[in-house]
Amino acid sequence: MATQAAFAVRFPQLARPSRGHGQGQPARVGVAVRGGRAAARGVRCRAGGLIEPDGGRLVELVAPEEGGRRAALRREAAALPHRVRLGRVDTEWLHVLSEGWASPLRGFMRETEFLQALHFNAVRGADGTLVNMSVPIVLALDDAQRRAIQADGATAVALVDAHDRPVAVLSDIEIYKHNKEERIARTWGTTARGLPYVEEAITNAGDWLIGGDLEVIEPIKYNDGLDQYRLSPSQLREEFARRNADAVFAFQLRNPVHNGHALLMTDTRRRLLEMGYKNPVLLLHPLGGFTKADDVPLSVRMKQHEKVLEEGVLNPESTVVAIFPSPMHYAGPTEVQWHAKARINAGANFYIVGRDPAGMGHPTEKRDLYDADHGKKVLSMAPGLERLNILPFKVAAYDTKHNKMNFFDPSRKEDFLFISGTKMRSLAKNRESPPDGFMCPGGWKVLVEYYDSLAPPEGSSKLREAVAA
Amino acid sequence: MATQAAFAVRFPQLARPSRGHGQGQPARVGVAVRGGRAAARGVRCRAGGLIEPDGGRLVELVAPEEGGRRAALRREAAALPHRVRLGRVDTEWLHVLSEGWASPLRGFMRETEFLQALHFNAVRGADGTLVNMSVPIVLALDDAQRRAIQADGATAVALVDAHDRPVAVLSDIEIYKHNKEERIARTWGTTARGLPYVEEAITNAGDWLIGGDLEVIEPIKYNDGLDQYRLSPSQLREEFARRNADAVFAFQLRNPVHNGHALLMTDTRRRLLEMGYKNPVLLLHPLGGFTKADDVPLSVRMKQHEKVLEEGVLNPESTVVAIFPSPMHYAGPTEVQWHAKARINAGANFYIVGRDPAGMGHPTEKRDLYDADHGKKVLSMAPGLERLNILPFKVAAYDTKHNKMNFFDPSRKEDFLFISGTKMRSLAKNRESPPDGFMCPGGWKVLVEYYDSLAPPEGSSKLREAVAA
Repeated sequence: MATQAAFAVRFPQLARPSRGHGQGQPARVGVAVRGGRAAARGVRCRAGGLIEPDGGRLVELVAPEEGGRRAALRREAAALPHRVRLGRVDTEWLHVLSEGWASPLRGFMRETEFLQALHFNAVRGADGTLVNMSVPIVLALDDAQRRAIQADGATAVALVDAHDRPVAVLSDIEIYKHNKEERIARTWGTTARGLPYVEEAITNAGDWLIGGDLEVIEPIKYNDGLDQYRLSPSQLREEFARRNADAVFAFQLRNPVHNGHALLMTDTRRRLLEMGYKNPVLLLHPLGGFTKADDVPLSVRMKQHEKVLEEGVLNPESTVVAIFPSPMHYAGPTEVQWHAKARINAGANFYIVGRDPAGMGHPTEKRDLYDADHGKKVLSMAPGLERLNILPFKVAAYDTKHNKMNFFDPSRKEDFLFISGTKMRSLAKNRESPPDGFMCPGGWKVLVEYYDSLAPPEGSSKLREAVAA
Repeated sequence: MATQAAFAVRFPQLARPSRGHGQGQPARVGVAVRGGRAAARGVRCRAGGLIEPDGGRLVELVAPEEGGRRAALRREAAALPHRVRLGRVDTEWLHVLSEGWASPLRGFMRETEFLQALHFNAVRGADGTLVNMSVPIVLALDDAQRRAIQADGATAVALVDAHDRPVAVLSDIEIYKHNKEERIARTWGTTARGLPYVEEAITNAGDWLIGGDLEVIEPIKYNDGLDQYRLSPSQLREEFARRNADAVFAFQLRNPVHNGHALLMTDTRRRLLEMGYKNPVLLLHPLGGFTKADDVPLSVRMKQHEKVLEEGVLNPESTVVAIFPSPMHYAGPTEVQWHAKARINAGANFYIVGRDPAGMGHPTEKRDLYDADHGKKVLSMAPGLERLNILPFKVAAYDTKHNKMNFFDPSRKEDFLFISGTKMRSLAKNRESPPDGFMCPGGWKVLVEYYDSLAPPEGSSKLREAVAA
């Protein structure tokens, strides 16, 4: 299965940073830098030493608080005759776009951007350079709406929430066909029924797409007790600058965090220090948008992340935990590019990629949907990601000889135990204890409580007693 | 349907060539030139003024006649313990690779090239620049062969024809999985059953792919009476240089040629002259490889092309008719990039693209497989094709007011008659005459004779008497 318990780091393409850079200065490594200057030109990006956002400037699409623009935009939206209602996933993309994760995109894709994403996994900026963009960020429209908007010759629409309240205006609009079959085939490499994102956001969506320039009335909030973790790329850049980070390494996660992940992250920092970086900072960045029904929910995962920091498994001094607001495609090699690209915009210049990133089981066949190695291969070759240092890591496991998570050593493979996400779930469900040192006690307790909430515990459980103690 | 009878030229992105260039000198137009020098560095490319081949050098993989290399390679191939038999389509790709149409590819794709083609429609050259490559050029292997080769640790295999005669050696081989579903979905944007290339070359192919460096024993010949039309990119470049071409415009065709095509080609030359080119030469380049069962066969199409030149519909002085040896994917926007890219390697710096290029009907739904506009849109944005001038043209038709093919004039649309490939076939089959001036008499006669050979004529036929006269 896609998730394996632990990993080992390789650094095949890294060179040492140039010497003589001070605190907070960018450390260039041996990877071609395209697109010129390192200093971000974005008005709100004070982190001058961090990697430049895609397109040179972080695109932020929320109306500024000052100057009355929000009130004016709210009035403008209310006056627009056409309203497009956003579903859950649409709102997550609106959030993503509004904060510049998808820079240089300025709104939902028009057809040229959509076609480039589908065919090339990259879009061409105004200056002709390619910027990575592997998943379509689009808004669907049904035929009746399409006809009404076009009959009016409208050039802008209001985007509204489930309660019909305006949240944004999409202007200079373009409406084009939503060829679902082609979109699905080119994004997932299959059209098999049962792809979670497809069922959630495509199958019942309209047959048209509407693109345009987006302006969002105010920052997107979820009021679920986790908004303090939802840092925008601009806020993350400020935080990295405040910490004088000279390297930022991002770790994308949608599964429960365990000590194998922690080992990997700690080891990555150690290696970056060895390479000459003075203060590498980890962006521990669980995905917060739509996930499939059998994934562990965000609220549980965030509680786990809190435990990991509380119990000192990761050092809070060199770790920033935040939520990545994107929905999950489960599109393997196509999606991992999006995961990496978005983190460049948040200031990360190193990206850790594991086995079968963004992968899952084939929905109708008894096999993984993607080759487990394709994700890191595709990522390392992707157009527009030349500036990013890719850190691939080998699969590893629980070391039964040393009773802890350890990098896999093929010379003594019989010592290693693989604990997949599926296995972890089954352990927790059956109240069995995981091997000692697999996960921090607080984190395991959170997980067991979650599975308890799904189905009451059956029979006796030593583990349950242990974690309740 | 995909084929419409006639077209109108637009030149949206052309600028005038720089003044002062002499005969045979390259005429630069207002399109970004990447990758440096215009002069081909290929040893056998004497056409110094033509557009540079992809990767800077035309890759030719046929063993040289002189020096005994062919005999040595033949002995080497005969001694290799592992032989991979080439099917019809495999041989066509071998032909394509051997002459450098796919430069800078040096053989059947290894996995990194395959993945880049599938995900990015482009592969990265040794110097990091992107070269367009939208369709996988791969060789399949069944599981028994894969196991035998890997058990031996073989590093090279002989490629043999249907009679088990060695035609090439593939060395420094790499064997990797042939995920057919993913390949099909990402290439065609559908996995519907009934795609002609898939049924011909993928469905029954092996579950593994073998890539490597190719060396071909001698030039590929078909001995079908048409080999004199099969000019290699190197031969075409020599011919263009001999004619002192200062612009080469390529026209890809897999359907019967008619006066609409001729009008378009003549008009393109006129416009290139107006732009300041002294001697634009047309590469009229019918596709010669695998086509679907209901397409008109190559031999018939070539007879038609001969008539078009004989009857002066096109000027032989400024026209080179040759066969493009590639098989047909019918993969629309993905494939049109291949069609264009290959012609760069043959020296063309202008490419004419029509409505729904390389398109066809959806195999299981009552609609075209691709949006008719996507081909030219995708082509104009494709990575690695920045140097090529794309000449899109609008659909047009038979002008009933002037009794000839004419560029479509929307102000008097009632005057125009659209004659699709399907309609043309039905006219010929039913012995009905097409409108006067739709096709040159000799060309129409060739077509009628072909349909006669498929099914004997029924009833009386004025047309048949006319063309027989």
